[in-house]
Amino acid sequence: MFAENEVEIVLVEDNPNDRELALRALKKNKIANNIVVLEDGEQAIDYLYGRGEFGDRDINVNPRLVLLDLKLPKMDGLDVLKVIKSDPDKKMIPVVMLTSSKEESDVVESYRLGVNSYIVKPVDFDNFVEAIRNIGFYWLLMNESPNKKE
Amino acid sequence: MFAENEVEIVLVEDNPNDRELALRALKKNKIANNIVVLEDGEQAIDYLYGRGEFGDRDINVNPRLVLLDLKLPKMDGLDVLKVIKSDPDKKMIPVVMLTSSKEESDVVESYRLGVNSYIVKPVDFDNFVEAIRNIGFYWLLMNESPNKKE
Repeated sequence: MFAENEVEIVLVEDNPNDRELALRALKKNKIANNIVVLEDGEQAIDYLYGRGEFGDRDINVNPRLVLLDLKLPKMDGLDVLKVIKSDPDKKMIPVVMLTSSKEESDVVESYRLGVNSYIVKPVDFDNFVEAIRNIGFYWLLMNESPNKKE
Repeated sequence: MFAENEVEIVLVEDNPNDRELALRALKKNKIANNIVVLEDGEQAIDYLYGRGEFGDRDINVNPRLVLLDLKLPKMDGLDVLKVIKSDPDKKMIPVVMLTSSKEESDVVESYRLGVNSYIVKPVDFDNFVEAIRNIGFYWLLMNESPNKKE
């Protein structure tokens, strides 16, 4: 078996503090153990398509959830979302925007591109951790996705 | 103001027991008060497009969540989903399949058509109520949708 079979969450986040906090919240609550952390939009695409540093990844195995920041270096979160949701194979991956943007245009554009859910990052530390816990619980323990067949 | 402005959940479910149970779970937990309950796929389309018995509804106001059973009389849940997600205005509405089907083909087809989330109905009474509570909490209290602008 490939290690990739077990990837539960791909977290794409350029802010090191938010990244660390989200990781800790997910692991602490034992919701997800196998989390891939990426720092920009290009890395996210490379990961999903097994390119560059992820060249030996089995790209037929989709992660169970992509947690995607909106403002990302190199390639914007909305552009990453567009690539995923325009690809018949990748569009099966649940994508949740996790962003500090409450801009109506960002919300509308995300839904237009086919996002599964849009969560505004709580500013407060405890609320942020609680939100991550709830997102992990909902998408990994309640939601059914086609990837389970792998 | 139209009463429709306040519609939080449209529940489309042909099984009277599940319908009653879901309604009670949502109201008991004070997650949603304004719930529209529909019994088949045709009614769902009529509601969303302000046709038939819903002729005087303001169709520019989208509900905040559609909870959609998969096997429905008159028009199948997957067909309802297809109509919603093919329409640039309606595709903004978060749609969660709530079904007893664990069939891989149903899961895959739902994601292919653009479902936001797919939940398998727990068989156990308490688990069903808990799942409804969690779905309501996630989609009404955590998730951001474009409809809030109305």
